[in-house]
Amino acid sequence: MKRLSDLTTGLVGQPMLEILNIANALAATGRTIYRFEVGDSDFDAYPHVIEATKQALDQGNTKYVASNGIEPLRQAIREYTAGKLGFTPELNQIVTMPANSIIDFVIRCTANPGDEIITLDPYFPTYEAVASYTGIRQVTVPLREGFRLDAGDLEARITPKTRLIIINTPGNPTGAVMSEAEIRDVAAVAAKHDIYLLSDEIYAENIYEGRHFSPSFADQCRERTIILSGFSKGHSMSGWRLGYAIGPAELIAKMGLMFNTVYTCLPPFIQHAGIAALATERRLMDERRSYYRSLRDLMVNLLNDIPGVTCAMPAGAIYAFPDISGTGMNSKDFARFVLERAGVALTPGAFFGKRGEGHVRLCYLRNEETIAAACEGMKKALGGNKRAVKFA
Amino acid sequence: MKRLSDLTTGLVGQPMLEILNIANALAATGRTIYRFEVGDSDFDAYPHVIEATKQALDQGNTKYVASNGIEPLRQAIREYTAGKLGFTPELNQIVTMPANSIIDFVIRCTANPGDEIITLDPYFPTYEAVASYTGIRQVTVPLREGFRLDAGDLEARITPKTRLIIINTPGNPTGAVMSEAEIRDVAAVAAKHDIYLLSDEIYAENIYEGRHFSPSFADQCRERTIILSGFSKGHSMSGWRLGYAIGPAELIAKMGLMFNTVYTCLPPFIQHAGIAALATERRLMDERRSYYRSLRDLMVNLLNDIPGVTCAMPAGAIYAFPDISGTGMNSKDFARFVLERAGVALTPGAFFGKRGEGHVRLCYLRNEETIAAACEGMKKALGGNKRAVKFA
Repeated sequence: MKRLSDLTTGLVGQPMLEILNIANALAATGRTIYRFEVGDSDFDAYPHVIEATKQALDQGNTKYVASNGIEPLRQAIREYTAGKLGFTPELNQIVTMPANSIIDFVIRCTANPGDEIITLDPYFPTYEAVASYTGIRQVTVPLREGFRLDAGDLEARITPKTRLIIINTPGNPTGAVMSEAEIRDVAAVAAKHDIYLLSDEIYAENIYEGRHFSPSFADQCRERTIILSGFSKGHSMSGWRLGYAIGPAELIAKMGLMFNTVYTCLPPFIQHAGIAALATERRLMDERRSYYRSLRDLMVNLLNDIPGVTCAMPAGAIYAFPDISGTGMNSKDFARFVLERAGVALTPGAFFGKRGEGHVRLCYLRNEETIAAACEGMKKALGGNKRAVKFA
Repeated sequence: MKRLSDLTTGLVGQPMLEILNIANALAATGRTIYRFEVGDSDFDAYPHVIEATKQALDQGNTKYVASNGIEPLRQAIREYTAGKLGFTPELNQIVTMPANSIIDFVIRCTANPGDEIITLDPYFPTYEAVASYTGIRQVTVPLREGFRLDAGDLEARITPKTRLIIINTPGNPTGAVMSEAEIRDVAAVAAKHDIYLLSDEIYAENIYEGRHFSPSFADQCRERTIILSGFSKGHSMSGWRLGYAIGPAELIAKMGLMFNTVYTCLPPFIQHAGIAALATERRLMDERRSYYRSLRDLMVNLLNDIPGVTCAMPAGAIYAFPDISGTGMNSKDFARFVLERAGVALTPGAFFGKRGEGHVRLCYLRNEETIAAACEGMKKALGGNKRAVKFA
């Protein structure tokens, strides 16, 4: 007899659907909707990346290639990693696939149903979504004041069933950049208890103050550390769906076999775009980062002008994560309120874990006019209600 | 404690690695290797498809889009399906993803570990690879003389644990096109026992004699039939990694949630390529098919000239699947023999199931010179050994 399998009951997908549906319905009436809910840039990929993609298409890079990724791209990743993190991974430590898939593949290749993985809270929702459908238990470590991690909080949650710790620096949604001391503590805990450590570094090129530090310092990804990286955020290439993992060779081999089984390979012309992206002049990257920083500053300053809203300055990533508890609303009510009253679409903090409640997330990679108009609208909508606005 | 998960022991990936390694080692010595092992065309995608991909890149179709696929592509699939199969699926019956992923997603969304799926034998290896790593049991139905299916053989293998039947017409590796009567029998068995039916129709545009008939006639994919289709074979677009499933809305919704969880979405510029591909003039498709037919005829005729080899004329797909049992070798020994003695890379039939043994698979979408030279080489290598060549 046919029936859907057990795992389908755990498939949650995007929690944003309700907000998206209201936003789309309002937009369909002709109303201007300011969209800050998607973690993507309004700015295009670099022209040389688009040209490289087109050139690869013209040159016939349009057939099946190796599942782990074409060698020129993996060589380019080796060199980029040497420059960025100070070690050169072996070719067999690298596999290319969409960065989001790396989360699914690492979790499924290291944990059985019933095993546990530890994430920080707030966390990127895909960690939860994968745990949910695989029957693997997500254990969360609430971050402390300023979204800092206390290593004791982490270690207290390790059990004999813990297989994987996931960190994310700079963090989505908080924008917090983990300090070298925090990273060293996490690496020490992972080593002491012999647990895999997935370091989600997708925002490593999006740091405005401080510097990126990776737990790969401890083992060069040979023992337990897996780096997740990709091109969506640092190189404005979300639509290319290109990322890569660097990790212990035996785990990377399994992930490659899984990618082969499920996906065959990534489009080769997309991999050529990755080679071009890694060769982007530092000057261009710095220019774009400076511009992003100015957008961050603008958004955070304007958010702090809104009654009931306070926003710390995030050191990295592409999000403002203001505290909206002063409005008296919870994060979902606030999201619906500003969408209906000010046409501003943003993400309730509750989607990022219990510790995300009381906050909302806005991706500020929009133009200045959009940011200014949206913040002005929210200020007006909340203006007469400095405290305890109740969503009707 | 860290350890790889149980499912990693079931990851088998490509069984071709040994042959590929020998082929690559020989090629590295400067020797000409004639490659027939990959199920891909030597011919490029249509120029208008490449242009559409480049235009979509130039027009900024490079950001996140809906996980189920952009609506213009799904609308184009509706129209194409109406023309090809005589029914118009609803939008919520369609999800786009790489065709190979559809196999993984359909199996995982319909069967639990310990459940059973039924495939024909010979079969496309991904069916086995997915069953292997998920702990779902693959039950095979050996095809009879001429690779025909007897419905009684199928029904005899149904148990209370059977969740899914997978058919593949035209078939890989056999090239057999299932008759309308065979398809009606399969659909009746699936309906009688209330089982999902995955119809892998990736080669539906690669038929040279007879016509394509789909089990979707019975339910318009509303009840149990899932069509797997894509652009790799019919439109020579293997490197785009674009396919689609049409099925019952509740199953398609789950597959979309799973795609959202694991991959987020497909690149939008690749989806625009799909729209262009579906608009390909019938004349161009017919021209290419005629050319493919001539390559098939050439290869089959030349194979039949080789001592110990007999090859039936396949009605569809892109493979010759000769019987090599007359050489006295099994299929793996034959594959190594012709690779080392004649520089011909092909796929042992044993990789496609027990019923594939005694055969080898060659993809004939190569130019005439390559086909002629390879067959000449195999003929010479086998010439002095009309019977019982033993691989040293």
